Amino acid sequence: MPRTLRSTPLEDGFRMPGEFEPKAGCWLGWPERPDVWRNGGKNAQGVWVDICAAIAKSEPVTVCASAAQYLNARNRLPDEVRVVEMSTNDSWFRDTGCAFVLNDHGDVRGVDWTFNAYGGLNGGLYFPWDKDDLIAQKMLEMENLDRYRSSLIAEMGGIQCDGEGTLLTTEQCLLNENRNAHRGKAWVEEQLRSYLGVEKIIWLPRGCKFDETDGHIDDLACWVAPGELLLHWTDDTTDPQYEIYQEAYKILSNETDARGRALKIHKIMQPAALEWTAEEATGLDSDTGAHRRVAGTKICASYINYYMGNTVVVVPEFDDPMDKPAQALLKRLLPDHQIIGIENAREILLGGGNIACITQPQYAGQKR
Amino acid sequence: MPRTLRSTPLEDGFRMPGEFEPKAGCWLGWPERPDVWRNGGKNAQGVWVDICAAIAKSEPVTVCASAAQYLNARNRLPDEVRVVEMSTNDSWFRDTGCAFVLNDHGDVRGVDWTFNAYGGLNGGLYFPWDKDDLIAQKMLEMENLDRYRSSLIAEMGGIQCDGEGTLLTTEQCLLNENRNAHRGKAWVEEQLRSYLGVEKIIWLPRGCKFDETDGHIDDLACWVAPGELLLHWTDDTTDPQYEIYQEAYKILSNETDARGRALKIHKIMQPAALEWTAEEATGLDSDTGAHRRVAGTKICASYINYYMGNTVVVVPEFDDPMDKPAQALLKRLLPDHQIIGIENAREILLGGGNIACITQPQYAGQKR
Repeated sequence: MPRTLRSTPLEDGFRMPGEFEPKAGCWLGWPERPDVWRNGGKNAQGVWVDICAAIAKSEPVTVCASAAQYLNARNRLPDEVRVVEMSTNDSWFRDTGCAFVLNDHGDVRGVDWTFNAYGGLNGGLYFPWDKDDLIAQKMLEMENLDRYRSSLIAEMGGIQCDGEGTLLTTEQCLLNENRNAHRGKAWVEEQLRSYLGVEKIIWLPRGCKFDETDGHIDDLACWVAPGELLLHWTDDTTDPQYEIYQEAYKILSNETDARGRALKIHKIMQPAALEWTAEEATGLDSDTGAHRRVAGTKICASYINYYMGNTVVVVPEFDDPMDKPAQALLKRLLPDHQIIGIENAREILLGGGNIACITQPQYAGQKR
Repeated sequence: MPRTLRSTPLEDGFRMPGEFEPKAGCWLGWPERPDVWRNGGKNAQGVWVDICAAIAKSEPVTVCASAAQYLNARNRLPDEVRVVEMSTNDSWFRDTGCAFVLNDHGDVRGVDWTFNAYGGLNGGLYFPWDKDDLIAQKMLEMENLDRYRSSLIAEMGGIQCDGEGTLLTTEQCLLNENRNAHRGKAWVEEQLRSYLGVEKIIWLPRGCKFDETDGHIDDLACWVAPGELLLHWTDDTTDPQYEIYQEAYKILSNETDARGRALKIHKIMQPAALEWTAEEATGLDSDTGAHRRVAGTKICASYINYYMGNTVVVVPEFDDPMDKPAQALLKRLLPDHQIIGIENAREILLGGGNIACITQPQYAGQKR
């Protein structure tokens, strides 16, 4: 049986599930590179430990660490977390890990998009990215699961699926000239349909400001249930994100999903603006291949960028008055989940992402 | 549930199976270091591919390759072989991999001996060996299997179990002052009993000459079935191995196994003596941490050092007149197995071992 299939998930009856569907596990990398993670990664590693412990309450967690960091990762992480060796360029498993797709007979396979570190040589965030483009393949081989490989340059952080045929994304990311602009929108849509088994694609023009990924949807909006979205929000008309939220709201309020439902939109109020401190910036190695961040660099902070497990939702906290209201809203929308706040999530933001960005859910097979 | 158990296999009802028992898979490393494997490992890698392809006919094969060699290993090996990343010091998985033990309820666990590269700083074969001592732990963690860790310095190449309570080994290896001499024979026996679930230990004084491991049993004798042994042999009284074979034969002919059976001994005739050529020796990096091998270095070549799969026996060939008689004997003793000869096995010998040394069988769970 070939490991890499020549067919597509759509042809084979596979679909991308929604984040609220049952998981068999969760995959993360291990932050290490000292030009992305300040203080040799030690601050971020501490937060990783908290996040892994929180997710492990809900489903099995696997952390992929480099040979150099294997023992440190193994020793810091809780016993119940599985640690395996894997070389990477950085630790954004939502974007570099495989997207697990399901059929109706209990089978699980993986979709492996082409990865270019968020824009390759045209605005990408690090060089090289060869090892990150192999992560999905290595995960699937370790798990003995079949793989689909697409030449679409994409990251799952830029794509939100409802599991029932609808996909939400941004033109700023997938149609960026540093991703797939040259292939054309029709080709991109055909790839999304073929590899994620979706029927309807809702395009927003752009994602949040200060998001370094070229507008990943996962800082702006996400599905909490079929037909229901969370949208990041502010009522402050002077806020740099204000227009973006308004624009997204207008489009989404006038849309229906693949099943023809109007979308119910829950606004979640954003935290105050953040930026790099001088002390933080001095903790970085510089000019070694990663996007340069200096004191005063604006940071994109979003409550949307959480991890939803089977029984927990692991949510970033920013020491902000809006932390608790955000968690209260999530608890209202997901009453059966334990909402776990992560205090030092700022450390992940300094690396350029957030909790959703570093986690890849492995969905459980389903028989229908 | 703890990953590393504080109890022992004996206490928990686990035992080491015989090599003829059903396997769920086979694990190998990937040869790479240029001071052990001539010509940058390329010759050995070619043989590895042949061996993996042969074993894959019988059970699933996993090859552990370093980050640097991952793509090369993946591309050279057949599709059906699983390749995962793992850092190692060298590629002797019989000795560094975990020994899989079984209970009667279908469970599989692993025994992780302490490893010191065949003698540590007192005659060991390479330095450092820190990564090799982690291989067993990493294998078990990848497979989500529980682990027993013993402070006995041992390699499974130095130990042969019949799966029915009998263990065959050599004093030269386990009681060597560079292994466990200081702990005493009684302590060593207690460790073997506790961690492999055996009742009777048969000690031979020494293994074959020119075996660099300090007399591993797996070049001299092995179980083909409970109560039946293969013993390497020559009738040439001037041969440097002659006395060793005679000595082993005398001991084994007067022994019984744990069940009280007299041992049936099948003599398998050895190939002609081998040694390093000058051309081979020039293919090595020198003085970089590995035991030094030069033109004229004697090589230990044994037909005993094969891999027994569920349906195949993978046997070294040395371009020697005794190759075919050895295979004919194996076919007679194991008529249901396909005997597969590996033509360039000499390349593994140059690294210091043979087919058994590079393979670690993963036994299938058994319900009794």
